[in-house]
Amino acid sequence: MKQALSELQTRDLRHVWHPCSQMKDYEQFPPIVIKKGQGVWLYDEDDNRYLDAVSSWWVNLFGHANPRISKALSEQAFTLEHAIFANFTHEPAIKVAEKLVALTPEGLNKVFFADNGSAAIEVALKMSFQYHMQSGKTKKKRFLALTDAYHGETLGALSVGGVDLYNEVYQPLLLDTVRAQGPDCFRCPFQDKPESCQAQCIGFVEEKLAEHHEEVTAVIIEPLIQAAAGMKMYPPIYLKRLRELCTKYDVHLIADEIAVGFGRTGTMFACEQANISPDFMCLSKGLTGGYLPLSVVLTTDKVYDAFYDDYGTMKAFLHSHSYTGNTLACRVALEVLTMFEEEHYIDIVQTKGERMRKLATEAFCHLPYVGEYRQVGLVGAIELVANRETKVPLPSEERIGYQIYKRALAKGLLIRPLGNILYFMPPYVITDDEMSFMIETTKEIMEQFFWEREG
Amino acid sequence: MKQALSELQTRDLRHVWHPCSQMKDYEQFPPIVIKKGQGVWLYDEDDNRYLDAVSSWWVNLFGHANPRISKALSEQAFTLEHAIFANFTHEPAIKVAEKLVALTPEGLNKVFFADNGSAAIEVALKMSFQYHMQSGKTKKKRFLALTDAYHGETLGALSVGGVDLYNEVYQPLLLDTVRAQGPDCFRCPFQDKPESCQAQCIGFVEEKLAEHHEEVTAVIIEPLIQAAAGMKMYPPIYLKRLRELCTKYDVHLIADEIAVGFGRTGTMFACEQANISPDFMCLSKGLTGGYLPLSVVLTTDKVYDAFYDDYGTMKAFLHSHSYTGNTLACRVALEVLTMFEEEHYIDIVQTKGERMRKLATEAFCHLPYVGEYRQVGLVGAIELVANRETKVPLPSEERIGYQIYKRALAKGLLIRPLGNILYFMPPYVITDDEMSFMIETTKEIMEQFFWEREG
Ligand SMILES: Cc1ncc(COP(=O)(O)O)c(C=O)c1O
Ligand SMILES: Cc1ncc(COP(=O)(O)O)c(C=O)c1O
Repeated sequence: MKQALSELQTRDLRHVWHPCSQMKDYEQFPPIVIKKGQGVWLYDEDDNRYLDAVSSWWVNLFGHANPRISKALSEQAFTLEHAIFANFTHEPAIKVAEKLVALTPEGLNKVFFADNGSAAIEVALKMSFQYHMQSGKTKKKRFLALTDAYHGETLGALSVGGVDLYNEVYQPLLLDTVRAQGPDCFRCPFQDKPESCQAQCIGFVEEKLAEHHEEVTAVIIEPLIQAAAGMKMYPPIYLKRLRELCTKYDVHLIADEIAVGFGRTGTMFACEQANISPDFMCLSKGLTGGYLPLSVVLTTDKVYDAFYDDYGTMKAFLHSHSYTGNTLACRVALEVLTMFEEEHYIDIVQTKGERMRKLATEAFCHLPYVGEYRQVGLVGAIELVANRETKVPLPSEERIGYQIYKRALAKGLLIRPLGNILYFMPPYVITDDEMSFMIETTKEIMEQFFWEREG
Repeated sequence: MKQALSELQTRDLRHVWHPCSQMKDYEQFPPIVIKKGQGVWLYDEDDNRYLDAVSSWWVNLFGHANPRISKALSEQAFTLEHAIFANFTHEPAIKVAEKLVALTPEGLNKVFFADNGSAAIEVALKMSFQYHMQSGKTKKKRFLALTDAYHGETLGALSVGGVDLYNEVYQPLLLDTVRAQGPDCFRCPFQDKPESCQAQCIGFVEEKLAEHHEEVTAVIIEPLIQAAAGMKMYPPIYLKRLRELCTKYDVHLIADEIAVGFGRTGTMFACEQANISPDFMCLSKGLTGGYLPLSVVLTTDKVYDAFYDDYGTMKAFLHSHSYTGNTLACRVALEVLTMFEEEHYIDIVQTKGERMRKLATEAFCHLPYVGEYRQVGLVGAIELVANRETKVPLPSEERIGYQIYKRALAKGLLIRPLGNILYFMPPYVITDDEMSFMIETTKEIMEQFFWEREG
């Protein structure tokens, strides 16, 4: 069912190569041209609106074109847009650093800026590695990461990722990462339940650490939710035990809170729920409330001190990006962090999370092709399966998630499933009505879709 | 001579880890807190001003807090700040893509967005590699790059870089790049002159390609200026011959115009001067006039087509960043490109370039410790040496560039030398008086410094 293209759609397809897309799909389903945003809604050129239930790849917190953030950004633009960040600084960066140090787990005292999530991961990997080189642990040249991990797309970040879809073709370019089987609560190999779970599966990591700890510089993990792999969730106890293992085996722990930071899981940072401090914490996405690319790596005084010496010793961390510490992005981040202080968003996430859990449980849990509905904070995921009992997946060739996605858009709902996992990760400003619309619409489409599919 | 710190300086040093810095240096020379910018000037908290002669790491084109750009950004912020860029699009991205395709060399028809220079390099490397994998050339797993190349800091970008200062410690994490000796006009191994040069030194690349072409997927190069290595300049003929070699040996040519693009060299893109089309062109920095991190990779229909197929063939390029195609950054880029059309900046660069060449030649060329003053477009560099005849470098332990940098700041001039190479890369809006101040101040400081050093 090819549609007539608007002028802008035609022009887009002539020159723009979109991310994470098979462009041939756009023949049947051309790109939607967004002209404005407001709250949870995106409006296209024909004034159709779409509820952004994925917060535009998990970045938006307080709604699109949020007037308060836009005002702060605008004022900053007329004052100072950007200045070189080596030997120079500015108030927005300083205040953002202070607030982040205050908000993050104990011990994370130093803040290194970068431009996006992938770059933050690269910074953490390089810092950890260089730290060990400079501390005489010169065998530590490898990273340990989990199956189904996702940490970004630059080659270093991709090397620690474990999702074949993104990695496979690039194998010859990737680092030789030590891979440990991660938690898989939906198909728990120990038939455990979250309530009673003691994270027996941490044993997979311990095995690898026992064997490789001398050559491993850091373990990297997405706390509580392996997001890109399909919103795979696991309990805080896993993180607690992982922290213990990292200490025991003298390897760094890198917490990649790029997707889960800033309240998503119901606490400001996911690590809080396990009451742990990592050696490095990577943040991005929500840091600017969905406005601008910016990321940070927080680390400890101990790490910082290992780089602090006379210039001639060549111990400095010489990583930089041209726009490191960008003033505009820092000003936006500062406004976002101030809004967290003044507007009680953590409470809001918890309250709205409870409502979403209730609505979604009622809507989805009884459906035959729903293997599980799971939720942490304001992240909810429906795992579609061919068979609820055996948990056999649906055939991936059918691209069922993608079919549902297209139907949802036709009804004004933007969900963008990960394979056959549908998920909700709305901006925190979503209203009760909007949430009901999101859940109800998804339910209707699923019922309709599977009804047609059966018959 | 420790200075008393301002409150903001103290707060900065408590938590901020600055890029490309030995933080211990900040004990003697604390970070300068910038509170506003205007034209070529940055103003600190005490209202001292600094002429930004390096365009804040080569990003600024039209001055700080440029009213026209700030207005465009501000309006965009209140309309649409950002939307997911997979299956969605917006007018600023479409127009930026169109303008870039129109401006860049023939054949570059497709535009892939990313967030910073390093990410653009990673995209080009991954695309080139995947292209060859999908075209049956599965032996092509390596990249060829030049000595003294700089392409960014993420591990893929760093792997093609050839500046030891940034790479050395990370060697165990880097790809095994085929390294060819690059051009070195200041110390030309063939004692050639730019006027008569036929790029004999391209032979170093040819040798490597003859040996390795079957395993090489792409050659990556900084056209006309190897910037981070010390503004090393070479004539267009080199690029022309490199293009011929890449075609002959069936490897891609990646032109990294991140530093030299957008008029810096006196033409919109440096490749124009050699009249060549690369297979990939990476752009960033000036793309947003120094406002925001944004980058693009342009490539050919041929490359695009190799990824264009039914979804099930798994040929898609699945790279993405959360903020890919960021609306705010695209809107700024659109304004920058429109200003190029309306305000004749290429002419301006050429005129101001001629003036800078005249002033700088008069000021520096006769000084005993100046090995060479060289210039392309609005990039001028002074190569300091111990001996003009033998071209023996100055001892790097003395950090002479750094000493001069500190003195210049005390006089209101921000140059940030690369080792012992001083350079000027000012915003295009620099006035005659400002340019005179920049050259005169540098000259005074150099004379004073070397006079003290001698005796
Ligand atoms: C957990 C995690 N880490 C890293 C990244 C990479 O961030 P970016 O897309 O900004 O490069 C993502 C992005 O989706 C992510 O979810
Ligand atoms: C030629 C070149 N390539 C790539 C980069 C990396 O860009 P970014 O600093 O935005 O990562 C730079 C930055 O200085 C550069 O000069």
